[in-house]
Amino acid sequence: MTHLDADPTNEATEFTSQSAVGQLFDATRERTLTLVEPLTEEDMGLQSMEDASPPKWHLAHTTWFFEEFILKPYLPGYEPKDDRFAVLFNSYYVQAGPRHMRSRRGLLSRPSAGDVKAYRAHVEDALREGRAHGAFALEADRLDELLTLGCHHEMQHQELLVTDLMHAFSFNPLLPVYAEPRPVEVAAPQTESWSRHDGGLVEIGHAGDSFAYDCEGPRHRVWLEPYRLRDRPVTNGEWIAFMEDGGYDNQTLWLMEGWAVREKNDWDSPLYWWKQDGVWWTYTLQGPRQVDHAAPVVHVSYYEADAFARWAGHRLPTEAEWEAAAEGTQIDGNFLESGAFVPTGRKPGLWGDVWQWTSSAFSPYPGFRPPEGAIGEYNGKFMVNQMVLRGGSCATPKLQMRSSYRTFFYPHQRWQMLGLRLAADL
Amino acid sequence: MTHLDADPTNEATEFTSQSAVGQLFDATRERTLTLVEPLTEEDMGLQSMEDASPPKWHLAHTTWFFEEFILKPYLPGYEPKDDRFAVLFNSYYVQAGPRHMRSRRGLLSRPSAGDVKAYRAHVEDALREGRAHGAFALEADRLDELLTLGCHHEMQHQELLVTDLMHAFSFNPLLPVYAEPRPVEVAAPQTESWSRHDGGLVEIGHAGDSFAYDCEGPRHRVWLEPYRLRDRPVTNGEWIAFMEDGGYDNQTLWLMEGWAVREKNDWDSPLYWWKQDGVWWTYTLQGPRQVDHAAPVVHVSYYEADAFARWAGHRLPTEAEWEAAAEGTQIDGNFLESGAFVPTGRKPGLWGDVWQWTSSAFSPYPGFRPPEGAIGEYNGKFMVNQMVLRGGSCATPKLQMRSSYRTFFYPHQRWQMLGLRLAADL
Amino acid sequence: MTHLDADPTNEATEFTSQSAVGQLFDATRERTLTLVEPLTEEDMGLQSMEDASPPKWHLAHTTWFFEEFILKPYLPGYEPKDDRFAVLFNSYYVQAGPRHMRSRRGLLSRPSAGDVKAYRAHVEDALREGRAHGAFALEADRLDELLTLGCHHEMQHQELLVTDLMHAFSFNPLLPVYAEPRPVEVAAPQTESWSRHDGGLVEIGHAGDSFAYDCEGPRHRVWLEPYRLRDRPVTNGEWIAFMEDGGYDNQTLWLMEGWAVREKNDWDSPLYWWKQDGVWWTYTLQGPRQVDHAAPVVHVSYYEADAFARWAGHRLPTEAEWEAAAEGTQIDGNFLESGAFVPTGRKPGLWGDVWQWTSSAFSPYPGFRPPEGAIGEYNGKFMVNQMVLRGGSCATPKLQMRSSYRTFFYPHQRWQMLGLRLAADL
Amino acid sequence: MTHLDADPTNEATEFTSQSAVGQLFDATRERTLTLVEPLTEEDMGLQSMEDASPPKWHLAHTTWFFEEFILKPYLPGYEPKDDRFAVLFNSYYVQAGPRHMRSRRGLLSRPSAGDVKAYRAHVEDALREGRAHGAFALEADRLDELLTLGCHHEMQHQELLVTDLMHAFSFNPLLPVYAEPRPVEVAAPQTESWSRHDGGLVEIGHAGDSFAYDCEGPRHRVWLEPYRLRDRPVTNGEWIAFMEDGGYDNQTLWLMEGWAVREKNDWDSPLYWWKQDGVWWTYTLQGPRQVDHAAPVVHVSYYEADAFARWAGHRLPTEAEWEAAAEGTQIDGNFLESGAFVPTGRKPGLWGDVWQWTSSAFSPYPGFRPPEGAIGEYNGKFMVNQMVLRGGSCATPKLQMRSSYRTFFYPHQRWQMLGLRLAADL
Repeated sequence: MTHLDADPTNEATEFTSQSAVGQLFDATRERTLTLVEPLTEEDMGLQSMEDASPPKWHLAHTTWFFEEFILKPYLPGYEPKDDRFAVLFNSYYVQAGPRHMRSRRGLLSRPSAGDVKAYRAHVEDALREGRAHGAFALEADRLDELLTLGCHHEMQHQELLVTDLMHAFSFNPLLPVYAEPRPVEVAAPQTESWSRHDGGLVEIGHAGDSFAYDCEGPRHRVWLEPYRLRDRPVTNGEWIAFMEDGGYDNQTLWLMEGWAVREKNDWDSPLYWWKQDGVWWTYTLQGPRQVDHAAPVVHVSYYEADAFARWAGHRLPTEAEWEAAAEGTQIDGNFLESGAFVPTGRKPGLWGDVWQWTSSAFSPYPGFRPPEGAIGEYNGKFMVNQMVLRGGSCATPKLQMRSSYRTFFYPHQRWQMLGLRLAADL
Repeated sequence: MTHLDADPTNEATEFTSQSAVGQLFDATRERTLTLVEPLTEEDMGLQSMEDASPPKWHLAHTTWFFEEFILKPYLPGYEPKDDRFAVLFNSYYVQAGPRHMRSRRGLLSRPSAGDVKAYRAHVEDALREGRAHGAFALEADRLDELLTLGCHHEMQHQELLVTDLMHAFSFNPLLPVYAEPRPVEVAAPQTESWSRHDGGLVEIGHAGDSFAYDCEGPRHRVWLEPYRLRDRPVTNGEWIAFMEDGGYDNQTLWLMEGWAVREKNDWDSPLYWWKQDGVWWTYTLQGPRQVDHAAPVVHVSYYEADAFARWAGHRLPTEAEWEAAAEGTQIDGNFLESGAFVPTGRKPGLWGDVWQWTSSAFSPYPGFRPPEGAIGEYNGKFMVNQMVLRGGSCATPKLQMRSSYRTFFYPHQRWQMLGLRLAADL
Repeated sequence: MTHLDADPTNEATEFTSQSAVGQLFDATRERTLTLVEPLTEEDMGLQSMEDASPPKWHLAHTTWFFEEFILKPYLPGYEPKDDRFAVLFNSYYVQAGPRHMRSRRGLLSRPSAGDVKAYRAHVEDALREGRAHGAFALEADRLDELLTLGCHHEMQHQELLVTDLMHAFSFNPLLPVYAEPRPVEVAAPQTESWSRHDGGLVEIGHAGDSFAYDCEGPRHRVWLEPYRLRDRPVTNGEWIAFMEDGGYDNQTLWLMEGWAVREKNDWDSPLYWWKQDGVWWTYTLQGPRQVDHAAPVVHVSYYEADAFARWAGHRLPTEAEWEAAAEGTQIDGNFLESGAFVPTGRKPGLWGDVWQWTSSAFSPYPGFRPPEGAIGEYNGKFMVNQMVLRGGSCATPKLQMRSSYRTFFYPHQRWQMLGLRLAADL
Repeated sequence: MTHLDADPTNEATEFTSQSAVGQLFDATRERTLTLVEPLTEEDMGLQSMEDASPPKWHLAHTTWFFEEFILKPYLPGYEPKDDRFAVLFNSYYVQAGPRHMRSRRGLLSRPSAGDVKAYRAHVEDALREGRAHGAFALEADRLDELLTLGCHHEMQHQELLVTDLMHAFSFNPLLPVYAEPRPVEVAAPQTESWSRHDGGLVEIGHAGDSFAYDCEGPRHRVWLEPYRLRDRPVTNGEWIAFMEDGGYDNQTLWLMEGWAVREKNDWDSPLYWWKQDGVWWTYTLQGPRQVDHAAPVVHVSYYEADAFARWAGHRLPTEAEWEAAAEGTQIDGNFLESGAFVPTGRKPGLWGDVWQWTSSAFSPYPGFRPPEGAIGEYNGKFMVNQMVLRGGSCATPKLQMRSSYRTFFYPHQRWQMLGLRLAADL
């Protein structure tokens, strides 16, 4: 997987030679294919739960997005490769009846992985040629905006692709290796260190013309009391201390609802962990490994993160606290481009390794209005019962990251690269 | 039910003659009994779902609260009436095994309603006598604080008592009448009117020494953009317009999760509504009635309220917007004391008739710390996945109301007196 | 409860003086009331699960049966006490919508127990007077047939009334006593004894004019291989030996489906058992009692009975084997009339104490045709997935018993008085 | 698929040249591979529900059976290809934890289909060579018995393989074609014709030395009343008449439990049917086709079959009636070997096209004793709550058929080739 960290600003392809958007497009499309190189055809169809999708489906859906929102409406004479793909690969398609349900994506053995790759090429060709010849019935700026959106959309699916795959692989007793293990990096010394922040009337949310999702704006004022943030995410070593102190059995540490979920699912450790001969092991995309005490804990739910913070005598940050601290810092951390696919704890700042649960529910910012049309369904319709996470993970493309970037999951979910960072009042 | 609106500041009983706390205690305890006067012994045990409890259980649990948190720890020599009640009437008691579960409260045919009333008298006598003789091992101020908390706790259960009962009665095809119907009041004319608010850096949260729950503080600053609020809650007439415009069938109006809940439950109108000969009817505590177009809509979920607001081109207010507008206004509206037990729309300000869904998740305020001990479990452990409502309803004792008062329910819940008010940006 | 064993052939009342049917009617109706004498009004409404009904509902439904099938069609000018009872107390009534569901019978706090008793009297009066004055538009023989059916139907509900009540009481931590405990009878010595049967071409099924349910006929020939039957049901002592030998943990003893049910429900003993200080206790209608080793085991599912039989190296009998052995024997055992309400093991023949699971699915006999009309729904519609039990229990009225009597329950059910008897090939 | 009807008694391979068992083995193993020839690698992993397994798993499990019960215990020095396959491909393996569950077979993208085929060859080679060289620590007769059992086991899985695959394909909106459609055969004229049978004391169950499953014996006597059987299964045309007469909406035709299942699942036609422009279509292994009125109805549950029979004024046969009529008749019908994979109605006797629901629960015959050891788990542990079907289907290898052959499914299951034949009393 030599191309994961290909820098679109340095490489030249036929398309990228023309523009930054072209470079982004080429690099993004290529990386998706690089990510499925280690997979067999049979791996390509795996779906382990309704929340997850097969690798092949991610390949197709990210292509469908370009076809549906750019080629079909704006490229005169465009011929779809197969009319039926419009239904098969539409994530939003809602219809009575059992045949097209999200939970059934794993049953689409046809079209084949090869057919899907041909579909990708077909759409890419049309986009490249259409753009090269100025054939789109759309202004160039708007076309580039839509292409950029499509690339960012595809980057989100790159992260889902590897985490969904990991979930499916975890049910195979052979515990397949996705990425070759690398020598375990020595993590930074575990000193207790916090950064202090004055708060006050700050501004958060996306500003400027660069790409951002609708839910990241409008930029707006928020009042913050003074606070501090831990310099690194909570580690596996700290989590084991919580476990050994009875954290999973002490109901007073838990939210009422969290306790019910924990009881129903018999949670007594993060997802993918098991104990063997007195030692904690975990399944990773590098295969089974001993739990690394110095690395950030990952695959914990909001309920667990909240209980841990209470046990530690602190709390989770709000998303505004996180963003106010992050704005202007350099985005440097363990992202998808490293090819590690596991949190390492090697770069312990605000960024990368694991998404960090905040105590903020995913809600609209003041003045938020979703765009018109289907693209407007992107984020707004999820604004209930989900919690915001910040910072990106070892499965997130670095290009996607911004201090205003908000991802969100349900409090019970654990299969993504989810961890936490502690906060406290001053 | 002549005593529902007894004003504790005017009445004199043996206990109340001594203090405001005594008056509050006497009036609160008496009102609970007044509320069950229309019930038969068989009504007293009804439990229709896990979220609800039988009337008899509310009578007992509010008594247990005084016994457990005041008499047992602080009254030397206090003899419980029955040791087993400590388990039976503890709402927080969590234990493996099926015998004491919350969902089984309706199976407690014993102790009888009579025994529970005797239990109430036993605890009241001990409290009154102990206080009169200064027998508590506790400072007088702290005793009064705990008594006040117990009274406010009991007022919350008064509201639950009547709404839980309504839910149980609704399953009886005889559709029992709880409160005698009153002549339908003529509602105020339905003109479209909004109040404007400048926002800016405001303070919300409880201030001062008067009673408030832990989650209402600390008082803190919040930045608000300018906004406006509708002068009255959304009415049944407006809701029917939404229904007739296909509101329940138009998925684009709904949150993703809301639509799934709506589909699963086949919702096509508020809870308790049915159509008969072309006319909408509803079950109320006054028995079956035609839906009153001028009265506020009630028994709608957050999902429905959110969809309605989107349909109307507006939005729900945040809780900070609501509180900033309400602070300092006179608390005047249709509360429990009116004896109507249905929303009437007669007093269309910010207060009463129906709780108003806000777009704010129930979260801790900056600097929130729950008190130590079991009383600290009161609110904090519910701070996930629930939405805040404001303003009180026709089933809420007026004495309970404050501009900082936060109640909270899950977005799918409908059996309480839940409605909505529209907000908009300026 | 002095009237449980009232012999309708000896007693004389105004009605019984006229005929055997009259005597049966009087005794049956009186016994139902006797059975609820120990209950409070609040007990009368208890429903603990969908399979069970409240005592009050049994009182009403057995009355509804006479009203619906005799008074309404055949007594000119009959005025129902309340038209709405036709719906409320119809066990077969199926309708979309949540308001009249079987699972909601426990929410019918109204009509009151008093109203239901008045309903009983109203219907009884109409029946007695109508019959005395020959006012029925029906031949006398057919009238008596229907009255007899109604009485047998009511006897079935007498058994359900006490077993349903027991289930509801079991969820009350106070573990109410229904019947006064009696001195524990010394059981017969536990010698291993079997009866031998030649089999061959035998006849089973009801013959003659006396009352029997439709499913007990037609009488027909069955070929049986030689077999033997244990002289008494399996005892608690034997069951504990099975438990101590790991019977509940040895999957090879269990049917595949039985094991899944056992795992899902964490069964490790019969229903209502718990271990306290090393001793097995059980809840009974006489309140909590130590498990009596000499008494028959009760409250075991078919799955458990089948696993026990395999563990014991034997099998369950077929219903034909049981009936062929029972035909012509004296019906002598511990039935409802004893007032014990627990199996005692004192009369260890084929009859009474506990229903005995057979290995026969409840299926139609050759030539079975249900009667026309609603009465024809009595048994035929249940003929799938249920197993036949034979012999009657300590909660069964003795009058109901016949060698051809078939009762049936689902393999997972345990709340009735269900036990087992071993059989073997010769 | 030219080899589906290869006759093992005529063909000669290296193994078959030696014996009938060898011929059976070669033909059976080859046919399994022939059945997956039309599949892609991605098809090989499809699992659509817990009741079904992926094609690849069937290939592996049938191989595991030979390895586990013959090679491992009896071939000295046998080296398994991969020790982990013992767990992966054991259908009976029960273990706590989510990783090896039956419902997760579809997630085994590894080992690949190619690896599984290599596993098949490895085991076949060991069997053939071991047998050729007399290397087994087992008598030749017993070895051949086990080989024969393994072949019959594999034939059962051949039927499951195609019906499971059909179920998975049905969720793909592309509705894949498995077998090339053949010209629709003209079915025999639909005259109403019945055969009459005297009944009396007959013998049923397997007799003699030829292969049969344990549950087909012992042979035993059964008394039958005179009866008649319809000459052919119920057709689609008859089923449509039932549907048009409101059969799916008339509760009085249905078993209580059947109605509940029908309501819960919104059944209004057989599985895989839909209506398009007023015409009924169905998905088949030949792809989507108009419903052929003259062909037998297929994919109906026991509940539906039972309701149909009641609507038709007749009943389903017992399994003894079916077997007594079938014994001695020629086994001639539409089986797997035809390559049609759909019922055609062309050979309307007792055999083939569709399995026929009987009214008999799957129970042990008198004197039934399962064999010792794991092989004894084959049938006995399923003997509760399932119904027997007789006659074989278009997906059943003809070689498997015998008049004593019993298959069994749950009353709600429909994905197999399940139909019905009417019976009546004389």
